[in-house]
Amino acid sequence: MWLNCDLGESFGTWQMGLDSQVMPYLDAANIACGFHAGDADVMANTLLLAKQHNVTIGAHPSYPDKQGFGRRSMQLSKTELVNCLHYQIAALDGMAKVHGLNLHYVKPHGALYNDMMRDSAILQTVMQAVASYSPTLKLMLLATQAQSQHKQLAEQFKLHLLFEAFADRLYDDAGMLVARSQPNAVHCTEKTLEQVRTLSQFGYVTTVSNRKLVLNADTLCVHGDNLDAIEHIKQIRALLAPV
Amino acid sequence: MWLNCDLGESFGTWQMGLDSQVMPYLDAANIACGFHAGDADVMANTLLLAKQHNVTIGAHPSYPDKQGFGRRSMQLSKTELVNCLHYQIAALDGMAKVHGLNLHYVKPHGALYNDMMRDSAILQTVMQAVASYSPTLKLMLLATQAQSQHKQLAEQFKLHLLFEAFADRLYDDAGMLVARSQPNAVHCTEKTLEQVRTLSQFGYVTTVSNRKLVLNADTLCVHGDNLDAIEHIKQIRALLAPV
Amino acid sequence: MWLNCDLGESFGTWQMGLDSQVMPYLDAANIACGFHAGDADVMANTLLLAKQHNVTIGAHPSYPDKQGFGRRSMQLSKTELVNCLHYQIAALDGMAKVHGLNLHYVKPHGALYNDMMRDSAILQTVMQAVASYSPTLKLMLLATQAQSQHKQLAEQFKLHLLFEAFADRLYDDAGMLVARSQPNAVHCTEKTLEQVRTLSQFGYVTTVSNRKLVLNADTLCVHGDNLDAIEHIKQIRALLAPV
Amino acid sequence: MWLNCDLGESFGTWQMGLDSQVMPYLDAANIACGFHAGDADVMANTLLLAKQHNVTIGAHPSYPDKQGFGRRSMQLSKTELVNCLHYQIAALDGMAKVHGLNLHYVKPHGALYNDMMRDSAILQTVMQAVASYSPTLKLMLLATQAQSQHKQLAEQFKLHLLFEAFADRLYDDAGMLVARSQPNAVHCTEKTLEQVRTLSQFGYVTTVSNRKLVLNADTLCVHGDNLDAIEHIKQIRALLAPV
Repeated sequence: MWLNCDLGESFGTWQMGLDSQVMPYLDAANIACGFHAGDADVMANTLLLAKQHNVTIGAHPSYPDKQGFGRRSMQLSKTELVNCLHYQIAALDGMAKVHGLNLHYVKPHGALYNDMMRDSAILQTVMQAVASYSPTLKLMLLATQAQSQHKQLAEQFKLHLLFEAFADRLYDDAGMLVARSQPNAVHCTEKTLEQVRTLSQFGYVTTVSNRKLVLNADTLCVHGDNLDAIEHIKQIRALLAPV
Repeated sequence: MWLNCDLGESFGTWQMGLDSQVMPYLDAANIACGFHAGDADVMANTLLLAKQHNVTIGAHPSYPDKQGFGRRSMQLSKTELVNCLHYQIAALDGMAKVHGLNLHYVKPHGALYNDMMRDSAILQTVMQAVASYSPTLKLMLLATQAQSQHKQLAEQFKLHLLFEAFADRLYDDAGMLVARSQPNAVHCTEKTLEQVRTLSQFGYVTTVSNRKLVLNADTLCVHGDNLDAIEHIKQIRALLAPV
Repeated sequence: MWLNCDLGESFGTWQMGLDSQVMPYLDAANIACGFHAGDADVMANTLLLAKQHNVTIGAHPSYPDKQGFGRRSMQLSKTELVNCLHYQIAALDGMAKVHGLNLHYVKPHGALYNDMMRDSAILQTVMQAVASYSPTLKLMLLATQAQSQHKQLAEQFKLHLLFEAFADRLYDDAGMLVARSQPNAVHCTEKTLEQVRTLSQFGYVTTVSNRKLVLNADTLCVHGDNLDAIEHIKQIRALLAPV
Repeated sequence: MWLNCDLGESFGTWQMGLDSQVMPYLDAANIACGFHAGDADVMANTLLLAKQHNVTIGAHPSYPDKQGFGRRSMQLSKTELVNCLHYQIAALDGMAKVHGLNLHYVKPHGALYNDMMRDSAILQTVMQAVASYSPTLKLMLLATQAQSQHKQLAEQFKLHLLFEAFADRLYDDAGMLVARSQPNAVHCTEKTLEQVRTLSQFGYVTTVSNRKLVLNADTLCVHGDNLDAIEHIKQIRALLAPV
């Protein structure tokens, strides 16, 4: 089970995330494309960092909303969303090629990610955008109980999906993440490591009501926001290593 | 002598230029990349229009300044300028590939175009950006008396240059365009056609002081801003046809 | 019954609306504040034009979305919406004072206008924002069947409301505008003038199902997008004059 | 001698500066207006913080360039610059009034500050913008050897100036700041405190060539970027207290 993390989310002079400290522990970097975070300089630096550590790269596109960090839902038409995704994917893809890198997948950010997970029409628009950009580009989304439906939808577009689970987030019985506003929504170190262990060894998480929920995840999403987060990643790495 | 024109300079709901009327008469379209004009939707529509009329496409990148339409000089560092160009070129390039098109050249816009023509350091930064993006991408710039120096500079980067002349602009004796703020800076129809004729048949323009100035131009820049401009283009086309 | 119109919706070099032609026929100008349209230069010019024609001015704030022209709903938190409105109102208000003008009212734009008309929580947030900016500033909204509820809500904030009706738009039986995507949603000249006549003389409009719907409107919203629209306004003016 | 500091330079989710830690030690806060940093939410929070600590507020407007943090010079026309300043000042001024605060002065930011200090035409445009906004608003600029000329210029606009010196920056013999790129451009704690002492007690600084340079400064500019900077401010406060 490999690790992915959102990176390149600084903007101009504003720093976010400890990218250079977290990159060595990652398998895949979801790189912001300048719409919710990042800019041409941040993108170039993040690509170089990924290259240095031989980390697989994905595009992390968003609704166009820097002030809101892409966390506010916006009602784009289907065409607007497709073009908005093509633009961002293309910008990162072309910059990656300058540095000899290839883009492997797309993971939508923030409100767009949430919107596509709850609205099948939006998910299909995202699928169409990714598949029409390149036949080899994959789409990363949340591993849920709707996984088989999502695979069926993707087949229409001949699109390969990557399913992710979260290491440090509490799940409800329906397989959705408990909102951050709720108590215990974000796990402590111990529970994070336990969740990683059950996921990687047995393919389940323990939900808010203490049930075992099966999740077929290809990859684990981790965070590199602060020193504690990086400590978590190191321990997750150690735990996954023997697998 | 082929015709190029700046296109795709609408933004959101704001229209600019009669793109669909001018496209049929062009050989090459310089397409805005979203920094001074254009957005993902405008770019997609402009690419489709170019495809429909089998028009060669180039990227028309700019300083990041929509309010100023890229006409205000900005002091970007060398690295900032390279990344800013890579981002814009990549965005258009990737969107073009979605529609089965290939990007052939880059023509900087507005203040960036003027800055690179007067400052050799900026020109070299632009050259480096274009050449490092792709070995086959060309750079379009103004045909001036410094043409051989420009070619020498470009050789360092193994970059191919395209030189353009203006159909409707008055030249000074040094081969620079007389500023639009000056009287007679923009030719009437008759003088425009005469300039096209002397350029295409004999390779010279008649300057403000009535001298013959030799200009080795590969392409003529025309405009599609209004119905008069389109009428000009039709007549220029008719004039060039027998050549 | 006085006329209001959205103005100042150019941006940078992009023109929109025939502001200088429509201003002489208006009583009140709803001026964009730079978030969906307009910028500091457009705002200054629009204020000067309003001053010249002695037209009352209102702020026309929006969600922050120039590419989408404020027509795409965005999920702002209550605090974000209040601050976003304060910023825009303040920017226009202060610029108005520079030119010796006072802001009289606020009319939200586009998706924000629609959102506040359908969602009472958003309407109350808008009311709070306007009332907390200044005790004399009024809020303009759609005259509907919910008018008395809207007045009750406004009383909490000691806020005075201005109700507008549309001259050229077809109403449904519930008093809402028939969507522009529907046939006959926008009236021809004859029907526009008839609607103005029944509204101004008898206080009703004829709905899509041919019923008479009472609308207590203080003001009529007209448009200045093109020459036809201006011709409409002249005729509406002539019609209202004797009243 | 009172202390001023640039504040409110976070943007969206990106934090900058330890505003809540530095505010208690300040006399005056230069608040970003959303063009190089800040947004409506950051501005509201910064105003509330200034109110809580009874700190005088000034507007800190900039060229419109968030990615470049207002540090890249832009060639705005005189009218564009005046309107750009009016817009930013007005936005902060109106938001301040919402919270019962009044704006006392304007201190341009970054490249605009540098440009006005080296180019008298730009300085006069800034003066005109501030003076035309309000007759009581003051302009803060660098205390240099050109102070009397600057006062003469300001008299034309009936504008009151505030002169600032820097606590932690090395001066050259001409009274300009040594560029940050030079060695020793930024003082250590000891030298900072010594510079504050000589400035506040005797009105001079010791230049790069060890000369005494007289500076008539009304206020000292300090920084609140990190914990060290805040420690400096506390010590500067202690030093100034008995004066």
